[in-house]
Amino acid sequence: MTETVISSANKKVVIGFDRPFVIIGERINPTGRKVLAEEMKMGDYSRVEADTVAQVGAGAHMLDVNAGIPLADEPAILAEAVKLVQSITDVPLSIDSSIVAALESGLAVYQGKALVNSVTGEEERLESVLPLIARHKAAVVAISNDETGISEDPDVRFEVAKKIVERAADYGIHHSNVVVDPLVMPIGAINTAGRQVMHIVRRLRQELKVNTTCGASNVSFGLPNRNGINSAFLTMAIGAGMTSAITNPLHGEVMQAVLGADVMMGHDPDCARWIRKYREPVAGTGVENGRRERPRRRRQKADPG
Amino acid sequence: MTETVISSANKKVVIGFDRPFVIIGERINPTGRKVLAEEMKMGDYSRVEADTVAQVGAGAHMLDVNAGIPLADEPAILAEAVKLVQSITDVPLSIDSSIVAALESGLAVYQGKALVNSVTGEEERLESVLPLIARHKAAVVAISNDETGISEDPDVRFEVAKKIVERAADYGIHHSNVVVDPLVMPIGAINTAGRQVMHIVRRLRQELKVNTTCGASNVSFGLPNRNGINSAFLTMAIGAGMTSAITNPLHGEVMQAVLGADVMMGHDPDCARWIRKYREPVAGTGVENGRRERPRRRRQKADPG
Repeated sequence: MTETVISSANKKVVIGFDRPFVIIGERINPTGRKVLAEEMKMGDYSRVEADTVAQVGAGAHMLDVNAGIPLADEPAILAEAVKLVQSITDVPLSIDSSIVAALESGLAVYQGKALVNSVTGEEERLESVLPLIARHKAAVVAISNDETGISEDPDVRFEVAKKIVERAADYGIHHSNVVVDPLVMPIGAINTAGRQVMHIVRRLRQELKVNTTCGASNVSFGLPNRNGINSAFLTMAIGAGMTSAITNPLHGEVMQAVLGADVMMGHDPDCARWIRKYREPVAGTGVENGRRERPRRRRQKADPG
Repeated sequence: MTETVISSANKKVVIGFDRPFVIIGERINPTGRKVLAEEMKMGDYSRVEADTVAQVGAGAHMLDVNAGIPLADEPAILAEAVKLVQSITDVPLSIDSSIVAALESGLAVYQGKALVNSVTGEEERLESVLPLIARHKAAVVAISNDETGISEDPDVRFEVAKKIVERAADYGIHHSNVVVDPLVMPIGAINTAGRQVMHIVRRLRQELKVNTTCGASNVSFGLPNRNGINSAFLTMAIGAGMTSAITNPLHGEVMQAVLGADVMMGHDPDCARWIRKYREPVAGTGVENGRRERPRRRRQKADPG
């Protein structure tokens, strides 16, 4: 029954065993997005703004914000991005960086209780990130690798997660504020990757009683029809007990899989959310998907200027 | 590692714990299909033929054949349908009836080792169906209800399944020849239906070591976007260990969910089947989905008449 509460100034999201699955939008991340990286570096956050609006509109419950741009002032850019995103949405954020100074500057401007992404089992990371989490009373994503890298043995990854949870406790961080990422391997390369994740998620839940998250899209790396694989993965991971994921909410197929998995888990009472989203249009009313359709011809807006 | 072997004269299908999921096509069934019922009663099997070709083409590994038409000679019609289907495809069949005489006449004409659908835990059914299974060395679907009806408690349904497996053993039928249907409830009415099935499937597999099947579409009864719910259900049920389902292979979304679930379970080595099915067209070759695309303009066929 572990619940991890993340908040903004006005809104609370709970990641929990008996809760609907939490989608953390992954789009605000310049890794592999050259144009976004260049714009953010130049102080142009228009695309960050658009990604915020689009992801929240698509149903993201939280947003991950990353500013990992080579040779840029990452702490300053991440703080700017966090401030901007919080000025246009009240969904809580995951502050994402591999640079501790950037996490620190992001946390300094953040309003609410953030999810910090991430700490690993590496000694140097534990010692620098955990005190920061404790000081800000934040929650943290714990990634189950350490100095020896990422083990292919899920039970070794479990042990790394256990070490992080124990070390967090030493800093006064309750296990409900540690969300473990069991690390998802590309299933095209490692055919057991799906079963590994289900196995480790069950152990994390039963033995460490922690919530879980993952970078879901990684599972389909290199395969065609990635959304099909990502959908199968998320559905099965939710069945095994996973409680959140960092993924792209703009993919309708993946969002449908998550909503369907919530129905299957009994986390959508009376299937009300499913019915609202997918109900058939009622003939003649113009009502579809729970919203009134736009009329075909719209009056031109009066020019406010 | 239980394996249930079903066969036709020339083809074998194995339902098994470490095997790809087996899809049993549900379409050849006049229940709720008035036109089909009328045609079959009149001796017109053209639609049965079309359903056979379409379902096998869509990837069904087996076909269920049912001739349950009120006030018709079901034993004769079922035997005709079985003979016809076996004359046009070599995928093995599930012979489906609630009338023992119909099962008997279907088995009498069947070539190979059939799956008989079904026996329940009702005393009268056990005593009439199990000897038939033993005599024909067939396999049987065991439905987990009895004289008291269908329990909402999955552990009671498990006990009914256990009784059937034990009674089958008394007739010399090995548990690998009993495929249990744990009964899938409409999740719109019973919100715990998904978790119930996962729970009972795990118990059936671990404790009785039997393969499992279900009428998958029932889960989405009364809900919009039924294929979305069916896809989530099948993916999660496969994650819990379900090994076959009677469903509609003509729904591409549901078939994709099953193929994706097989990838996740490690039952699609090197993701070869997934890649073959979904690979992108190679620019300029006109090759897509492993098949050559139709040219845009086709020559008009010469009139054979």
